[in-house]
Amino acid sequence: MVNSNGARTNLQIRLRSRPNDSPGDECWEVTRSPIPQPGDGQLLVQVMMISVDPAMRGWMSDKPSYLPPVRLGDVMRAVGVALVVASNNPSFSTGDYVRGSFGVQEYAVSSGRGVDVLNPYTAPLASYLGPLGMPGMTAHVGLFDVGLLQPSETLVVSAAAGGVGGVAGQLAKSRGCHVVGIAGGREKCRHAVDELKYDACIDYKSENVRVALERECPAGIDVFFDNVGGAILEAGLSNLANGARVVLCGAVSQYNVDKMHGPSNYMNLLVNRASMTGFVVFDYADQFLEITAEIAALLNQGRLTSYQHDVAGIEQFPATLRSIFDGENTGKTILQISH
Amino acid sequence: MVNSNGARTNLQIRLRSRPNDSPGDECWEVTRSPIPQPGDGQLLVQVMMISVDPAMRGWMSDKPSYLPPVRLGDVMRAVGVALVVASNNPSFSTGDYVRGSFGVQEYAVSSGRGVDVLNPYTAPLASYLGPLGMPGMTAHVGLFDVGLLQPSETLVVSAAAGGVGGVAGQLAKSRGCHVVGIAGGREKCRHAVDELKYDACIDYKSENVRVALERECPAGIDVFFDNVGGAILEAGLSNLANGARVVLCGAVSQYNVDKMHGPSNYMNLLVNRASMTGFVVFDYADQFLEITAEIAALLNQGRLTSYQHDVAGIEQFPATLRSIFDGENTGKTILQISH
Repeated sequence: MVNSNGARTNLQIRLRSRPNDSPGDECWEVTRSPIPQPGDGQLLVQVMMISVDPAMRGWMSDKPSYLPPVRLGDVMRAVGVALVVASNNPSFSTGDYVRGSFGVQEYAVSSGRGVDVLNPYTAPLASYLGPLGMPGMTAHVGLFDVGLLQPSETLVVSAAAGGVGGVAGQLAKSRGCHVVGIAGGREKCRHAVDELKYDACIDYKSENVRVALERECPAGIDVFFDNVGGAILEAGLSNLANGARVVLCGAVSQYNVDKMHGPSNYMNLLVNRASMTGFVVFDYADQFLEITAEIAALLNQGRLTSYQHDVAGIEQFPATLRSIFDGENTGKTILQISH
Repeated sequence: MVNSNGARTNLQIRLRSRPNDSPGDECWEVTRSPIPQPGDGQLLVQVMMISVDPAMRGWMSDKPSYLPPVRLGDVMRAVGVALVVASNNPSFSTGDYVRGSFGVQEYAVSSGRGVDVLNPYTAPLASYLGPLGMPGMTAHVGLFDVGLLQPSETLVVSAAAGGVGGVAGQLAKSRGCHVVGIAGGREKCRHAVDELKYDACIDYKSENVRVALERECPAGIDVFFDNVGGAILEAGLSNLANGARVVLCGAVSQYNVDKMHGPSNYMNLLVNRASMTGFVVFDYADQFLEITAEIAALLNQGRLTSYQHDVAGIEQFPATLRSIFDGENTGKTILQISH
């Protein structure tokens, strides 16, 4: 961003107020400040793109969660891919591509802690925010460490064509599972089956999900990887196999509602000797290298494909975040900040 | 029962209709039939007492569950202690005390399958429907096999003074846990602390359970053994420690409602890396002998006490079953049929 004096500035999006439901424009303040200078041991990065995630809605709230809330007035938290433009840290060189929690802004100064150097030849840079980033780690940990998914079992994934769901479905197919998706709209379902290789995908906008799951999972669901919550979770709970594992990854249908809707049929967990388990992917950080290698190999073999929904321009951030909850995105949503 | 001709008859309570909410008198039909004769390999028992359980409400419904529904017109299912009065089965002798699923009736003929001979010198006969019966097995399996409760962890038990809850609390105390109960009314809470040795008991009728749990479990709940559901489950979910296990044993607050209330804060399972797991005690039948020996030893050492709520007379069955859902019982509810 160049200001009226011709000097470059740092455009930032800050949290102004906490939302009650859908995060409207009034939640945000756009500020322009001078580009910061890196101090001793620090690096300065130019943010190229950021990941726009449902989890951001949680960070905007002041409820205690697995990460502290973003403070009012602070730059909104976001994980991005960036270019190192100056470095006083021996671990990073000018010209390195890096990933870190740089926030919704054009430039950031970092200590280097939690920042990874990326290899742009392994995979496209955006993959490091998708299958090789938190969505990929989340899918893998949720399926295999939490859900204990076994080959030949039946997996159901809600938000099947989303950033996490799309990777989860493909990972499960790579291990020989029967994989059924749930997504909103005919186009997303087509995408899930044709490109993400789901065995079937149920369109919740035009089908009764409970009945469709019964049809697609005649022996019941072994693992239900839920990103959605609400009525979709209830439909899953109505179709569990004995010993089923429900993996709670998210509840995107519920983040913007004041009072969440709990699954009224949760006692199906009892009848089916089933469990419902939450997890936080950061707890599994010691596995990320190994998981990254497995997913990178699948990407390079063409056995896993990465889809992203690109939006250009930092000023599009508020609308892009809202669009996630409207189910408009197919694949991982990436906001391009600079090239 | 002696009929007007002076002949003994078998008084039976049969399921006439399925309830929508609380099971009213119209659900039942009282019949009198001749006392049956045992055929080859069969035994005839005189039922002395039966266990009256919340689970009976589920058996009355036609929803699929872990046992088939009781058919309309059939004698209501019930587990009882009985005296063998005639036997054509070499495994049973006249005069044996036995336990089995004999139904809500004065006499029953059985093949002997699933029938256990009881030792009346080990413990009072009613104990075989309490700590040495399904309630005891359920408490033990739920705590240790499902909940993986460890010494020094914090356990919370809802329906703390009930048939299962009372045993669960004492078993956990015997292993050195910090044990907090939730029960309805001052008298039940006094009973839980003074006689069942709970460290504390929260009266849900006079306290905000969420706030009280925060006070009694400052480091959070490690295992929540839930018999109640509804708002009590939500209060538990609001106070979980990291890695907590919620054991779904029952939902007595919800059995008589048309549409169950799901826990609106179930996503606390995610933040706390916690699980909610259902189980059916019969799956653990291979452990019952070992568990029975452990509990019998605790009973004989005076380290576990057995409380029962006795009601006399088979004709009291409908009202007794309803009373369970009104929270009127302290301890295991036993209906005395004959002496």
